[in-house]
Parts: sequence; C-alpha cells; structure tokens
Amino acid sequence: MSGTVGKPIFGAIEAGGTKFVCAVGSGGDSPLLARASFPTGDNPSLLMGEVVAWLKARQAEHGPLAALGVASFGPVDLDERSSTYGFITTTPKPGWNNADIVGPLRQAFKGLPIGFDTDVNGAALGEWHWGAAQGLEDFVYLTVGTGIGGGGMARGRLLHGLVHPEMGHMGLPRIEGDDFAGACRFHGRCWEGLCAGPAIAKRAGMPAESLPPDHPAWAMTIRYMAHALVNLTCALSPRRIIIGGSVRKAGQLGEDRFFERLRIEFRSVMAGYITSPALTESGIATFIVPPSLGDNAGICGAIALAQAACGQGADRKPAG
Amino acid sequence: MSGTVGKPIFGAIEAGGTKFVCAVGSGGDSPLLARASFPTGDNPSLLMGEVVAWLKARQAEHGPLAALGVASFGPVDLDERSSTYGFITTTPKPGWNNADIVGPLRQAFKGLPIGFDTDVNGAALGEWHWGAAQGLEDFVYLTVGTGIGGGGMARGRLLHGLVHPEMGHMGLPRIEGDDFAGACRFHGRCWEGLCAGPAIAKRAGMPAESLPPDHPAWAMTIRYMAHALVNLTCALSPRRIIIGGSVRKAGQLGEDRFFERLRIEFRSVMAGYITSPALTESGIATFIVPPSLGDNAGICGAIALAQAACGQGADRKPAG
Repeated sequence: MSGTVGKPIFGAIEAGGTKFVCAVGSGGDSPLLARASFPTGDNPSLLMGEVVAWLKARQAEHGPLAALGVASFGPVDLDERSSTYGFITTTPKPGWNNADIVGPLRQAFKGLPIGFDTDVNGAALGEWHWGAAQGLEDFVYLTVGTGIGGGGMARGRLLHGLVHPEMGHMGLPRIEGDDFAGACRFHGRCWEGLCAGPAIAKRAGMPAESLPPDHPAWAMTIRYMAHALVNLTCALSPRRIIIGGSVRKAGQLGEDRFFERLRIEFRSVMAGYITSPALTESGIATFIVPPSLGDNAGICGAIALAQAACGQGADRKPAG
Repeated sequence: MSGTVGKPIFGAIEAGGTKFVCAVGSGGDSPLLARASFPTGDNPSLLMGEVVAWLKARQAEHGPLAALGVASFGPVDLDERSSTYGFITTTPKPGWNNADIVGPLRQAFKGLPIGFDTDVNGAALGEWHWGAAQGLEDFVYLTVGTGIGGGGMARGRLLHGLVHPEMGHMGLPRIEGDDFAGACRFHGRCWEGLCAGPAIAKRAGMPAESLPPDHPAWAMTIRYMAHALVNLTCALSPRRIIIGGSVRKAGQLGEDRFFERLRIEFRSVMAGYITSPALTESGIATFIVPPSLGDNAGICGAIALAQAACGQGADRKPAG
C-alpha cells in the first residue's frame, strides 16, 4: 500500500451536477490508487453516504487519508464563519438546494482537514500544481460545458470574495445581426446563455457535437467567447486563460481549430488596446490554452484542495 | 516639524492625465503637511524635475521622507523585473509614451523605497486603510471621469497580473433601442466609450454637468454602469464596489440620486442570480458606494503606496 512508501494519500471528490467522481491518490505524477463515479441524482444525503462508504473502504485498503478535498458545482458557501459553510446553496438542481457537502464528511472523518472550493477553483489549483498554470500567480480557469464557470488566482491566491466568481453570467456585446434570444433563464443573453452547450444547441437546432465545422453557430460562439475573454482580461489581467469543459473540444470543428480561431477573434476584439508579448500573434498561443490535465483537471484539483487543506504539496500554499 | 513627534513622513504623487498632485504627510488622520499641483503638460522629464525639486524643498522643511508613493495614470509597467518598470507605457497622451516616472525619483532620492501602482490601485489602497474598504479583502475601486479605470484587491492583495486591470474597456450588452456608436477610439461601445464623461457629452450633445436630471442620457449611462458592475461582480466577486471620479457626482441629477438609481438598476440586471445579503434591497446601499476619502482618495492612496513600500502603516501589508 502507498502509505508504506511515505507519500501521503488524499481523498478527492469532484462534485458535479451529473456525477460525483471520487478518488484516492497522492497527486502529481503518482497515478490514482482508486477512482469511482456516482450519479448525482436528487438525494444529497444518500449520495454523500455512498461517497463516505467508498472513501472509508479505500482507507481500509490503502491506509489513512491525510486530508479530503472537494471541488464542487455551485453556487457554494465558502465563508468559514457561516452556518452553511460547505453547502451548495441556491442551485435550481432538484434536491440540491441547501445541500450540506462538507458536514457529512466532517462527521465521518472526524478531525481530518477538508479543503472545499468551487469546481473551477479546484481545477485551477490542479493546473497550478501540475498543469498549464505552473509558476503563474494570476490566471483564469474556465469550464465551458453544460454551463460556464470560472475561477483562478490573483496574486497567488484562489479567487473568492462576496461569494465566488460567477463568470458565466457576464453580459456581452451583441454581435451585429445576431437576434438569438439566448438560453440563460436568469439573463437570456449572458455568456452562458450564448456559449454553453445548451445555448449552442438551441441556436443551431442540434447539439454542438453534430455541427459541421462551417456551421455559422461556431463563428458566433467563438466570437462571443472572444468578447468574454477580453472582458475577463480587462477585469483581472490574467497571465493565462485555461479553457476546460466539453465545448472547447468543438465536435467536428476540433479542439485545435477552435483554439486557433478563438485566439484570432480575441486579438480582433481587443483591437490592440492592451499591449503585452502574451497578446501578440505569436504570444497568444500560450495565453489562451486548453487544460494540461485535460478531463482530469477536476479530480486532480480536488486532490490539490486536500493538499492545501493540510498545508502539503505546494511550493507556496495558496490561502484556501 | 513632524519628524520630531515620531510619525514617519511620506512623499506622495498622484500622477493624473491633467495634473500631478504632490503631497507630504503621514497618512490616516494626520493632515497633509504640504500639497501642490502641477499641470501634466507634454514634457515628462521637465515635470518630474519640478516634482523632485518640490519634494526636496519639503524634505528640507519637514525632515527626511521615509518613502515615496506614486499612483499613476496608465497603462503602466508594474513588473519589477522589466527594464521599463515604473514607466507609463503606451498612452496616446502626447509626450507621455514610454515616460519614466520612477527613474527620476530613484535618481534623486537614492535608496528611498518607492511604491508605484496605478492611480486606481493607489486609491483602492487608500480606501482600504482609511476609507470605504476598511476590513475588506476583496473589493473594486473605480474611477469614472475622463476615462474609466478600475483596481482593487483580491484576497487582500492589490490586483496586478499580465499588466493591470483595464476595467473600462470591457464590452457591455447593447440596451434595446440604443444606437449610440460610443466614444472609445479602440472599441467604440466599451464601458468607457459609453459611460465616461466625454461619452456622455457626445451622446447628449452637452457636458454631463449641464444635463437636466430627467435627460435620457442619464438613464442610459446608469443602466450601462449597472451592466458593468454586474460584469465585475461576476468576474471578481467583490464585497464592495467604490466609485470615484467626476461622473458619479452627476451634475444636476446629484450624487445621491445617481447612486440610488444605479443600485436599483444593478439589482435589475443581476436578476436575482447571485444571492447575498449584500445584494438585497437593503444591503446594496453598502455594496455600491462613493469613496469615503472623496477627491482625496488618489493622494491618500499615494501615501498608502509609500507606506506599503517601506512596510509601514498596514495592519497587514498588501504585497505591492
């Protein structure tokens, strides 16, 4: 068992709206020792019971866990002084309104440090340790899939605040001639309402995966994505923007082509206003990038949150 | 002289596009010991010579300065490893492209710590020490005047990054029926192109100060301001947004009415998506606020940058 070679083992939960991925492992280059996936369903306490049982069984198998990390869909309560710290708060997802995530883990693993943050901040921390954000103090991590979420770091610390960023709900300029009403039930044409998977499908009348590469919905989606990334660059001045989630795979258009076109559109929208080597024709290829950890960014991020919770594994411990 | 009572004295420069305000003082409740203003003009080295001479004369009068602080218009180079650190970089302002601000000060005051940041980060730091951002780790400070700039803190540190935030150049949704082309020479209808003083004047055909309170340009300006603040709230999750600059004084409409209407429009644009006590009908009055230091936010901020440069005066030293 891994405990014998001296590397601490962490329990990790990537809490998503469709499934909860659980894993135990040490992070970095070490392969995961175990991994399992549970449908999210509509009964949080039942699911958290399953998760706890699975983690307990892995602990029996591999030795004591040093900490737990949870990277969760949201909105979540990250205020440690709050009575609902560690809860998913006002989600429209049936059964999950005010669902306690950290509580059942604390109950089952008394005294164990537990790191808890948004899924995107978790993935950001994973990319910071082991992926595309290594060595960067200021960057943004986005997921563009069923919804759009964003996290990242400013000056070496994960972005928190009043609640946590909700980047997907920024408003964007209307592209000339576009009369699509958008798909967000709160804001219609916010970024999520224009560029998330369901928005693309609504606009095109078919899922993004089925769109031919020259379908005009791609041009629209990529142009709006560029507006959103310019807004984030103006607001946060990141040194890199990492885009995860399913939309960037771009079906028949393909991930490489999606990023190439997005970088061109970004420079067009920015119109030369902010000057930096990172935003030149050659620099932009390392400014807007996919996650190095690919679809493992989330679960690796949960391990990184566990590490941070017990003060291990970071060259420099990001606060929270 | 103040040196005799033991409080350190700082030199402060608020470097604006119209004038440079210089002061010496200890910050906080201590009144400024001296203050002077110089037209910015188009000859940076000449002006910096005047500034240095004025500071030297005040030093002879009041005793040695403990540090200097400069809060500057931009864009500026904040990367201490860069050969142009302390420069104003790509401004369209005649004479000021690649103007060295910190260099002449370093030359004249050898060995003295010099804090240098954007005008808005300076003002943010001033408000954090002595004003509307006391006790907050995450907040935004905006100036809306001839242009629009934004700074602030995330997790207790001033926002830096690739360059520094350029919040005024975010793109915003078009308000139904508005066909104004905007006034930004880079982006047309970005936030600055819609809501800065010259944009309001261009839209209305008269300066903002002359607009009657019921002029439709106010409704448009305030609605676009609300879109911008919602975008910043989505991107950064600030605990408070402080708005300085001349536009918020709102001429005949008045500052109180401007803020009241802005808060209502903010809640309308947000459409209940982010829930927090700060964003309720009662909470919003302390979420969107004018600067406590009023028009002294800039020069107080420069003193705060000087304090930070020599590690004094902060309960907790913000990194940079």
